[in-house]
Amino acid sequence: MRVLVTVSYLGTRYVGWQFQENGPSVQAALEEALRQAVGTPIRVTGASRTDAGVHALGQMAHFDTQSSIPPERYPFVLNRYLPQDIRVLQGQAVPDDFHARFKAAGKTYTYRFYNAPHISALALPTSCHVPLPMDAHRMHEAAQVLLGEHDFAGFAAAGGQTKTTVRTLMEAKVERNGPAVTFTVTGSGFLYNMVRIIAGTLVYIGQGRLSADAFSDALRTGSRLCLGPTAPPEGLELTRVFYDPVWQVRGLASNQKGANHDE
Amino acid sequence: MRVLVTVSYLGTRYVGWQFQENGPSVQAALEEALRQAVGTPIRVTGASRTDAGVHALGQMAHFDTQSSIPPERYPFVLNRYLPQDIRVLQGQAVPDDFHARFKAAGKTYTYRFYNAPHISALALPTSCHVPLPMDAHRMHEAAQVLLGEHDFAGFAAAGGQTKTTVRTLMEAKVERNGPAVTFTVTGSGFLYNMVRIIAGTLVYIGQGRLSADAFSDALRTGSRLCLGPTAPPEGLELTRVFYDPVWQVRGLASNQKGANHDE
Repeated sequence: MRVLVTVSYLGTRYVGWQFQENGPSVQAALEEALRQAVGTPIRVTGASRTDAGVHALGQMAHFDTQSSIPPERYPFVLNRYLPQDIRVLQGQAVPDDFHARFKAAGKTYTYRFYNAPHISALALPTSCHVPLPMDAHRMHEAAQVLLGEHDFAGFAAAGGQTKTTVRTLMEAKVERNGPAVTFTVTGSGFLYNMVRIIAGTLVYIGQGRLSADAFSDALRTGSRLCLGPTAPPEGLELTRVFYDPVWQVRGLASNQKGANHDE
Repeated sequence: MRVLVTVSYLGTRYVGWQFQENGPSVQAALEEALRQAVGTPIRVTGASRTDAGVHALGQMAHFDTQSSIPPERYPFVLNRYLPQDIRVLQGQAVPDDFHARFKAAGKTYTYRFYNAPHISALALPTSCHVPLPMDAHRMHEAAQVLLGEHDFAGFAAAGGQTKTTVRTLMEAKVERNGPAVTFTVTGSGFLYNMVRIIAGTLVYIGQGRLSADAFSDALRTGSRLCLGPTAPPEGLELTRVFYDPVWQVRGLASNQKGANHDE
């Protein structure tokens, strides 16, 4: 049986989602918990290979098992063996040809800034500290040119392996609530470091270091140098992964063309 | 010079605000940072002696020093020596007869619930997990009878030392945002464990385990047994301490009668 789980984690002390020799990964922690719960080694495949320090509210991961554990019991079973900073929130059965990554139709990321001279201890683990003032309204306005289908070639760090750099963004909003400034972005897929590059550019636009044209310049020229710095990982959260609605409703694998799966 | 600092902390790994032999306290960490920054031992007095595991966004603390460090520099100076889970947000000079605790005219506390079968790793450090459904609207309605001046004798745990159990609440609201249910309460002062007893009772009312009359029964009879269990510390945050507005505006000590300073 193929099982799909929803996983949340505080990325602070992890080298990222994916297994690496040089430190603890979320994938390895999840596979170790599964091994303890089920008794056999099980490989887990995640929807997004989040970077070191990046958090998740709704990472999705699938695995195959012969176990008789009912899929909806996996949160109870796995949370018993997982560290506190990784929590499984949901489990469900999926068709055998379902794939957490290749069937993803879109993702929502949240990037949190804390815009005050000093950051609170409560916000620190999950926010990027921006000490100098920035204009959230200006940031929101500037982000609107990113909506729709564009070639985001200028918005990627080296190291991504992808056939095309064309992506579609459906949502890009910046909101302020006191010192907390939140950037929410939903798209068909994201290039390597794309959300953090947009976030860093938004800070520069909000502080007037870059003009609001920076995004359209980068879209037109494909040049990374039109944009601001890559914002640090601690502000980023993978909030939600969307799957093909047809599949979700019918419980069947779909024939629809998948999204781009590169980050 | 007397200096007043605003301090935020994640209470998770502390025995509470106050110095204790049996583990690390926020007060001790702050005094150690001051000693390193200023070079002499300095005693710090907090507005609220928060319990083990309780967090703060706006704890207030004063201390006396001969140092020439400008008061507004203390966040920079102290954060260099403090652990990441304690952050000083502000510093200001106050009159020599100012007292962080005795001059407090009121406090706001926030109690966070995470109401879903499984708690997310991001919410876990600062929320109380409530797996079974609860009705936030019903909780909010019930809390309204607490507003105004009442004898809260039934709302206190043993161990508080206080002359009177009469307190005034100015705000008591419960709001839901997805799985996050937040209780915000502002009052002249709070008895020992009072906010956590109200929070635990709100859960029982929201789940229909206790009738909405529980609060008025407890106010009338003074009996702790009318109320629900004391909610755990990890959901509680000292959000803000209010001082006499006259003093704040004029920069002078006031003659107004202070609030009650027992928690």
